[in-house]
Parts: sequence; structure tokens; C-alpha cells
Amino acid sequence: MKLLEDRIIKEGIVDTGDVLKVGGFLNHQLDISLLRSMGQEFVSLFGDSHITRILTVEASGIAIACITAQCFSQLYNQNIPVLFAKKSKSSNLGSDIYSAQAYSYTHQNNYNIIVSKQYLDSNDRVLLIDDFLAKGSALMALIEICHQAGAEIAGAGIAIEKEYQQGGNKIRQQGIRVESLARIISMNPETGVIFRHTAV
Amino acid sequence: MKLLEDRIIKEGIVDTGDVLKVGGFLNHQLDISLLRSMGQEFVSLFGDSHITRILTVEASGIAIACITAQCFSQLYNQNIPVLFAKKSKSSNLGSDIYSAQAYSYTHQNNYNIIVSKQYLDSNDRVLLIDDFLAKGSALMALIEICHQAGAEIAGAGIAIEKEYQQGGNKIRQQGIRVESLARIISMNPETGVIFRHTAV
Repeated sequence: MKLLEDRIIKEGIVDTGDVLKVGGFLNHQLDISLLRSMGQEFVSLFGDSHITRILTVEASGIAIACITAQCFSQLYNQNIPVLFAKKSKSSNLGSDIYSAQAYSYTHQNNYNIIVSKQYLDSNDRVLLIDDFLAKGSALMALIEICHQAGAEIAGAGIAIEKEYQQGGNKIRQQGIRVESLARIISMNPETGVIFRHTAV
Repeated sequence: MKLLEDRIIKEGIVDTGDVLKVGGFLNHQLDISLLRSMGQEFVSLFGDSHITRILTVEASGIAIACITAQCFSQLYNQNIPVLFAKKSKSSNLGSDIYSAQAYSYTHQNNYNIIVSKQYLDSNDRVLLIDDFLAKGSALMALIEICHQAGAEIAGAGIAIEKEYQQGGNKIRQQGIRVESLARIISMNPETGVIFRHTAV
């Protein structure tokens, strides 16, 4: 998606330690107009999938998920709710929740993501949404939660994929459709960000 | 706001320990259509305030803030960004951020909320948004951050205020306008939730 790629080139900062800072528009300050364009792009990609629910994980995924849900609600003319998984360090989890473990490479620790069983079941057709996809740990935990619920996965809509970290390809090989609006094939502080060429 | 009060009565669960569970529509699963109505209500309350930015705190505030920002962007015909403060347990904070301490009564610990200095300054006129207001610790930390930035505070828009915990009144006494869409004057598992009568 050219709009997002251009914004990353203009305002993103490639930092040491393989960090891409996009706090100006995606995960600290939020540019709602950009999110709206991204939501419409997800609708054009997944609109035929007849999703019933959007699942994301706190915190940065919530904004994209909400604006995207609004776009789907308008398309389907019915309310598509967002469900956001919560992060929990506790291993003492109740029986009324789905849970899966993820690993944070930023904080170098394991954490659980949890979702109440009340809000997700085998009648659901889910679109997963997240801001970043790198090694895929968080997204695989969301997939695991959908499996536990018996929910069908329509696919995953990602803002920025670091393709060279292989998480996306690993998940695509499981037969899950992953669509990323900006696909980075390499980045470092000297050369900046290089995208896979996309058509949009 | 009758729509929100009705939803709390219909789906909210008053639990022991002064907990009101609204995970079905406000802070786990998100009803985007309800959030939209809430955003429009905040616009009708604060539309004359010519806000430049919405400030909230992760994670539950993000959804309301984003949908509300969209409503303000439409009214003003210009992009109103959302800025969400991050929670940090680290006391080792950089010089390029504003920070303020808050206390979580749920988790019984102190934490810092932090905002990059890049995205908030004395030219801003800020609407604070959050899902709950009880003793006011998180909201006071957001106010402190605005003071550090020299930003003007247009007011605070809250989904649910537990009036009997006095945080809202303490902040109103500082001269800050606080508007809560549902104002709870008492609640317990036996009697349920009792609201202050509101006109809308």
C-alpha cells in the first residue's frame, strides 16, 4: 500500500537492533485518516470473506482493528465487533478463557494472551489484525486461540511485515492467508527501509 | 447517555470488589456502533472546544479515543490525531518523554505513563478520553503530562464514572471539565448499578 510505504519512508526511523519506529502515526500517535485508508484496504482484500469478528492483541493492534471493523460494518451493513486479546504474565488462568503463549523479542520474555470464551466460538469467521508481523509469535498465539475456539480464520491483515524475519511465510505455509500492507525485505539505519514492490 | 446506561444494565456484571465488568462491549470485546454513538456524544459536548489532539492511555482507552477522533475529524474537517500514553514499570525513563506516576487499584502497584515529547506541546488543546474514572489516578497522570507539555486541557470525556469514588469531583474542583456518559452513584452485586439521572 503506497500510502503506508510513503509514510514509513517519510517518518519512520530505522533504529539499531532491528527496530522500526512508527510512533508518529501507527503505535503511539495514531493518524486516524491513515488508519481509515488501511481499513478500507483490508476491506478490499477480505471483504468477500464474510467475517463475523476481528481479533487483535493489545495495545497497538486495537486502533487499526477498530477503524477496520467500522469499514467492514459499513460494507456488511451489520455490526462487526472487535475482540482484543489481553496480555497476562500470570500463569494462573481461569477455565473460562482461551490462552496461548507468545514471546516478546522486544522485552525478551514469555507472556500469555487471553480471550474470554464468551466472545469467540465455532460460529465465528475471524479476521486477525495486528500492526507488526516479524517472527510471528503474537500472530501464532492468536491463531492458536482461534483453533481452541474452533473458529474459522479468514486470514490476517497486517500493517507492516518484516518479511526477512520469516514469520509471515511460516504462517502462510500453514495455509493461512496473510496480507500485509507494507512488506519490508530489508532495513538498516544506513540504507533505510526497502519494500517488496506492491501493486496498490 | 441512555444508550450506554441501558447497555450496562443489560450486559454489565457487578462483581465483588467494586468491579463492573463491561467486557462484552467496552474493554475486551468492543461494540464499534456503541463507540460511534459515544464519540458523537463527546463531539456534541466538546465540539466547540476546538481540540487539536485526543490523549488517552493504553489499552482500553484507545478504542474510544480512535472512534471519537474520527467524529471530531469529520466535524472540523481536519485530521485530529490520537496519542496514547504507554504504561511503563521502568523508572529509567529518557529525557525525551513526559512521564507521570499512576496507581492501579486493580493490580495494586504504581506504574508510569509516558508520552513522547515529540507529539504534545504548548500549541495543543487536548481532549482526554478514558473508559473508566474511579479514584482518578490515571486521569490525573494524563493531566500532569499535559501540564508538563504546557498543553491546554479542553476537558475529559469518560465512558463510565464511579461517582462515589470521588476522583471525578476532585478533578472538577481543579477547574477541569469532566463529562462522563454514565455516572454511577452506587453499585453492588445485590442491587446492581444505580445511575445519576442524565438528560440525554
